[in-house]
Amino acid sequence: MRKSNTSVAWKRKDLLDLESLSREEIELILATAESFKEVSRREIKKVPALRGKTLVNLFYEPSTRTRVSFEVAAKRLSLDVINITSESSSVKKGETLIDTAKNIEALKVDIIVVRHNYSGAAAILSRNLHVSVVNAGDGWHEHPTQALLDMFTLKEKLGTISGLHVSIVGDIAHSRVARSNIWGLVKLGAKVTVCAPKILIPAAIEQMGVSVTESLDEALRDADAVNVLRMQFERDSQDAFPKQLEYFKNYGITEERLAKLSKNIIVMHPGPINRGIEMSSAVADGTHSVILEQVTNGIAVRMAVLFLVAQANEYISKTQPHAAGSSKQPGERKIAG
Amino acid sequence: MRKSNTSVAWKRKDLLDLESLSREEIELILATAESFKEVSRREIKKVPALRGKTLVNLFYEPSTRTRVSFEVAAKRLSLDVINITSESSSVKKGETLIDTAKNIEALKVDIIVVRHNYSGAAAILSRNLHVSVVNAGDGWHEHPTQALLDMFTLKEKLGTISGLHVSIVGDIAHSRVARSNIWGLVKLGAKVTVCAPKILIPAAIEQMGVSVTESLDEALRDADAVNVLRMQFERDSQDAFPKQLEYFKNYGITEERLAKLSKNIIVMHPGPINRGIEMSSAVADGTHSVILEQVTNGIAVRMAVLFLVAQANEYISKTQPHAAGSSKQPGERKIAG
Amino acid sequence: MRKSNTSVAWKRKDLLDLESLSREEIELILATAESFKEVSRREIKKVPALRGKTLVNLFYEPSTRTRVSFEVAAKRLSLDVINITSESSSVKKGETLIDTAKNIEALKVDIIVVRHNYSGAAAILSRNLHVSVVNAGDGWHEHPTQALLDMFTLKEKLGTISGLHVSIVGDIAHSRVARSNIWGLVKLGAKVTVCAPKILIPAAIEQMGVSVTESLDEALRDADAVNVLRMQFERDSQDAFPKQLEYFKNYGITEERLAKLSKNIIVMHPGPINRGIEMSSAVADGTHSVILEQVTNGIAVRMAVLFLVAQANEYISKTQPHAAGSSKQPGERKIAG
Repeated sequence: MRKSNTSVAWKRKDLLDLESLSREEIELILATAESFKEVSRREIKKVPALRGKTLVNLFYEPSTRTRVSFEVAAKRLSLDVINITSESSSVKKGETLIDTAKNIEALKVDIIVVRHNYSGAAAILSRNLHVSVVNAGDGWHEHPTQALLDMFTLKEKLGTISGLHVSIVGDIAHSRVARSNIWGLVKLGAKVTVCAPKILIPAAIEQMGVSVTESLDEALRDADAVNVLRMQFERDSQDAFPKQLEYFKNYGITEERLAKLSKNIIVMHPGPINRGIEMSSAVADGTHSVILEQVTNGIAVRMAVLFLVAQANEYISKTQPHAAGSSKQPGERKIAG
Repeated sequence: MRKSNTSVAWKRKDLLDLESLSREEIELILATAESFKEVSRREIKKVPALRGKTLVNLFYEPSTRTRVSFEVAAKRLSLDVINITSESSSVKKGETLIDTAKNIEALKVDIIVVRHNYSGAAAILSRNLHVSVVNAGDGWHEHPTQALLDMFTLKEKLGTISGLHVSIVGDIAHSRVARSNIWGLVKLGAKVTVCAPKILIPAAIEQMGVSVTESLDEALRDADAVNVLRMQFERDSQDAFPKQLEYFKNYGITEERLAKLSKNIIVMHPGPINRGIEMSSAVADGTHSVILEQVTNGIAVRMAVLFLVAQANEYISKTQPHAAGSSKQPGERKIAG
Repeated sequence: MRKSNTSVAWKRKDLLDLESLSREEIELILATAESFKEVSRREIKKVPALRGKTLVNLFYEPSTRTRVSFEVAAKRLSLDVINITSESSSVKKGETLIDTAKNIEALKVDIIVVRHNYSGAAAILSRNLHVSVVNAGDGWHEHPTQALLDMFTLKEKLGTISGLHVSIVGDIAHSRVARSNIWGLVKLGAKVTVCAPKILIPAAIEQMGVSVTESLDEALRDADAVNVLRMQFERDSQDAFPKQLEYFKNYGITEERLAKLSKNIIVMHPGPINRGIEMSSAVADGTHSVILEQVTNGIAVRMAVLFLVAQANEYISKTQPHAAGSSKQPGERKIAG
């Protein structure tokens, strides 16, 4: 059931980013996820694939949503799950990230899923550990499983990624979701437009192979899908409300805007949605929205990722028991903050 | 083993309250709990009944006691359990309760156990979700599994509920435990007296079918059991101590009071007890007290509830795959805040 | 596989300390741990030994490290695990430790692992509960599983404990790790030296059978191993930095100091390390250090302890169903705060 017809085999012990993955590797994850999606529809939604192995959720930023998605995915694979959050962890006692992670590795666990506000945190763990490392979001760098579930949903809805036009709207500059989506979509042959007020578009973003516009109508005009990023207005609470109104006026997705389009566009959002800021409630709950399907697909995609890295690492540790973690992963060192 | 002789079958995907349940439905839960009680006495205290299904504890109010009871009950049914507490949840990010719950549902979990300070929170989830919803306490409204375990304990000790005289002592006005007990006990044919200083008795409480008294001695006089509610003096810390002394003098259960009674009364408490406020330590630990047995019975009762709603929901989703959650539950809309 | 050749059988329902254990009992734990160590090397790192039983981690002090180690150990034995931390617990509602623990026992769980800042907390639970109690650190009193994993590591590295010279360096006065190590090592025939500035050495420590020195060089001179305690400078943040520098100068383990020794000394630390305070990074990560092996061995040792107490308690409850917890444990009452 978990056999895939793709000719490439998965060889990485970690999933750190989409930047360093090949098109074939991304397609292998998506194909593996497809076979796992069926498990969640069964009466007994569980397979013994990774029974007797242990996953640690090591979360330095609070994120119920992502933590719970990984926890459910892991339990469906029969993994044992240990949650460690920064509030309760040894971080308080001044221990370094690497010391914490090495201590976790010494417990002979199999996978560490890490979320950290430092761009590159997952790569640092990867280089220092033999255990599998899965990046659940590092700073502004990447959030690869979010992009993979976005792509899985696109493919499920539209049959393909190649040739699609996907617009990403919102705070591109500070979004790891945007970065991972851009790497993945471009590799798989989609046309990507990013759309935001100028101040939220990073310099030289065109070098990633995307088009840029400040106009939402332009971004939507012939897009097959729009991925709407979460805005973080809560940080400057003083003038948050007028800014939110202004943002919604210029960049909020509304039914009026969607009605003007010639295509039947798909609306995505990584959640949690700010209703009335990034999009109207009518859009969030309407027929264009696939937001809850993204959440459902997150389970299948994360099951696939956990399964692939665990299998690869078992193979690696049998054949090269003393190899260092990072040496097996060409391209890993290219990761930028 | 989990077959019951009761003629009624359980058809609800949710347990929201006792107000909308029939006498037969309550009796079915109690009979099912009886067969589950035996599981906790085995060497391997676990049955595969709900293996491969997932329960989410969604707690917006802290409650180790209730959360842990549901968690143990769930694991004894082989459910996978995910804990989400408000401290760590997306609530902080301003997401609505419904959005949070719909996201959890999209993970294809099977049961959400919800505790929330808003009366009606569980009913809102029920109307919006296909997943099973179990109310673990909503505002001042209801706490149905607490009342069910209280009734289970009464029946175990005294053989029946019908015809018993049960007094409930304490802050009736703000107690979901009192409300659920009143609905359940009256339906099963018990005589119920509520007892408190006038200010803690809600207007028109007699309409629920109970007697009212301000005198503890009167409430105890011919009662078979007294259910003593927790007092929440910690909220007004300024003058908490004199108030506590005064309360204990007038409403505290003491061995002296119990010794005066002609019947061998049962003393219950939902916990945690304030020793020396609601009752003396001698009573809490004495022969009248069944407080720890209530805790034990909570496991069996919650196993029964989880089992029944999960079974019913599986049947519903097979036979009416597109039905909305609430339409299957007559009476549900009657729930008052 | 879990059979041991040791002639003594384990009869205690609890593990509270090493003070009251015999040499044979300690050796039985270490021998049992040896057979469990192999489990963590398997592809499926799990045995059904305690399936259907439940362990509660009841932690009144934050300790990710110890909590996670017990959680992993428990899951490898197929125990269900419930975590209760003081932040979320009924403690806030003013409940006593005994009431909290009796409520947990009433859930029909099998083992309570307790960490508490009160010396004697585990012994109090043991006397009041039939459920097994494992001390995960109580005040300044004892931390028996830490000492057992230290001894397991010593034996693994050096083949024996008897005849070894082990020095313990750091805040002896306030260290439950030191106390448990001293009891265990002396019972097993090791020579123990404690080393610290005078103010950190408790009065009359020699009565425990150890030598005392203020000189680190003297403590290291002919030691086979040095166990370096964590310093808690964070509590007096005002002048923490100069104190740390001073401490490192006098008591920090450096490669220079180790190079002067004639023996190949083993360096241990219960973690988390303060690099540059208790030892240099070069030592922590160097060839003398067995710090991460200690973490790995913690799993095997805790599996052994959980297995032994659960087995003994099952036997006790079958043969003496109404016996009180403490009466079965000679020596238990000797435990000092």
